Amino acid sequence: MFASMDSVTAFAPATVSNVACGFDVLGFPLESPGDEVTARFWGRESPARDATPVANVRIDEILGDNGRLPRDAARNTAGVAAQALLTRLGERRGVALTIRKGLPLSSGLGGSAASAVAAVVAVDALVGAHSSLETLMSCAFEGERIGAGSAHGDNIGPAVYGGFVLVRVANPPDVIRLPVPAGLTAVVVHPDLEIETAKARALLGTTVPLADAIRQWANLGTLVDALHRGDFAQLARSLEDTIAEPRRATLVPGLAAIKQSALDAGALGCSLSGSGPSLFALCRDARSAAAVAAAMTRSVKQHIGGEPQTYVSPISTRGARVIAR
Amino acid sequence: MFASMDSVTAFAPATVSNVACGFDVLGFPLESPGDEVTARFWGRESPARDATPVANVRIDEILGDNGRLPRDAARNTAGVAAQALLTRLGERRGVALTIRKGLPLSSGLGGSAASAVAAVVAVDALVGAHSSLETLMSCAFEGERIGAGSAHGDNIGPAVYGGFVLVRVANPPDVIRLPVPAGLTAVVVHPDLEIETAKARALLGTTVPLADAIRQWANLGTLVDALHRGDFAQLARSLEDTIAEPRRATLVPGLAAIKQSALDAGALGCSLSGSGPSLFALCRDARSAAAVAAAMTRSVKQHIGGEPQTYVSPISTRGARVIAR
Repeated sequence: MFASMDSVTAFAPATVSNVACGFDVLGFPLESPGDEVTARFWGRESPARDATPVANVRIDEILGDNGRLPRDAARNTAGVAAQALLTRLGERRGVALTIRKGLPLSSGLGGSAASAVAAVVAVDALVGAHSSLETLMSCAFEGERIGAGSAHGDNIGPAVYGGFVLVRVANPPDVIRLPVPAGLTAVVVHPDLEIETAKARALLGTTVPLADAIRQWANLGTLVDALHRGDFAQLARSLEDTIAEPRRATLVPGLAAIKQSALDAGALGCSLSGSGPSLFALCRDARSAAAVAAAMTRSVKQHIGGEPQTYVSPISTRGARVIAR
Repeated sequence: MFASMDSVTAFAPATVSNVACGFDVLGFPLESPGDEVTARFWGRESPARDATPVANVRIDEILGDNGRLPRDAARNTAGVAAQALLTRLGERRGVALTIRKGLPLSSGLGGSAASAVAAVVAVDALVGAHSSLETLMSCAFEGERIGAGSAHGDNIGPAVYGGFVLVRVANPPDVIRLPVPAGLTAVVVHPDLEIETAKARALLGTTVPLADAIRQWANLGTLVDALHRGDFAQLARSLEDTIAEPRRATLVPGLAAIKQSALDAGALGCSLSGSGPSLFALCRDARSAAAVAAAMTRSVKQHIGGEPQTYVSPISTRGARVIAR
């Protein structure tokens, strides 16, 4: 049942979570960028008589983080996620990880989730376990929860499954893959800013006005129906965030103007990606997305300055995957 | 353009609103019971030189309310709704209404909405206006808002349009008709209790925990997807109310036990209809609904006593309509 090979590298994509009206429950992946994790066995194997699982994951190297992420596997999202899977599988061989961050840190593009998901996919292939997507999601969720301090599944879910993913319950996963209408294309602009997820979350508080919440679930129901019917006009109406964006607007200078530039250029909607500072827009086709990307990038430079990174991608229907063995 | 006839009678059905996870935004009609409103012209016509619309609706008779509803058209949901439509149409002839309440008062079955909707449908046909469903909904909403003190569209919408209706915005209406899976059947039990909507609403307060709200919109998105795919197992998981039912549970003695009796008998889910005291269950087919109806009725008698009224009906895809001219 368990095969063995020298090393396996997996890719997990950037993900846009919240998607305006789906705070903590909705997300989708881009085709790129993403994080890559390479897993290989290393010498240490936990002794067979040791009944409790041991920490048999180590991190060899992290590239692309400017030394900012923890090298201690027990405090690293990828390390914790890999360990969760090995423990669940009863695997006693040691596994070493190399992490290549393709995603900027604290960008609102699901970087923690991408590393955790790439790690479990790589480790699963390394040991030849063929775990279910539910198991991979559950272990990646553990990684994000412990490694990043909190987790909500709306980055993990899309990174594992691909496509528009609604996370009814994150763990154990109750995950719904929604249809992706033909043509639908995402624009993401990452301003030259960093926002800590924990700080962005603190702005929300722990209660919300009932009227705002009602509007949010009306919009989310409207969005799900619009995806099923490929109704872009209705999708556009649903892309309204009454919960997070109004309370986080101060984190991104010029947010209202940047949004307006996207809408003026033809976007169906525009809001923060995750807790920001990245912004996403949804567009009816690639041509519209190109115009929206240009307008948003210009507006971000004008209001925030620096050198924003801009990505244009279809809603990727592929989740994380092995890219090299 | 305007035809004339002696009288028109319209029927508008009982509606189940909230539907567990769709507080204030989701509802569906039963085939019966419902309210009937007969409209006919009467002598008084507002003078043509009077630029402001006059109160040219009167209520001749209300049957089935034990004298409890206001006979003053300006304070009656049906009267206000009819007046709103006549004003919008620029109609200057007087209209008299007779209202036959088929729905028990304060039952949680959308009685105010049914009277308002039946009134606008009857008046529209009487004057031959062929108004859009949006116009009818908007005028009925005015009737419920003024006549009942508040309105949320999740009874009005289903009573006008039929089928599972998601009300993104009540007025001006942005209304989405959701698919109704084959077989889906509702059971409604009206216990021998009355709950004032205003009191039930006061129990909710004006803010809710963010975590409860997140769970609610995850469930509503899950429900919309389940209706589109006819996935009864997923529909069952989505029928969870984290907002209203927990805060209103004390209004209905034995609520938890009654719900459990429905689930034990095979219901997909069970919750309060509107603000209660009526309870609804959704079932996969008519046969299951018969068993659930028997179990719920027995349980309601045991925990509440009195003589409950029990209704079994497919999710009606027909809204209000003219039944006699």
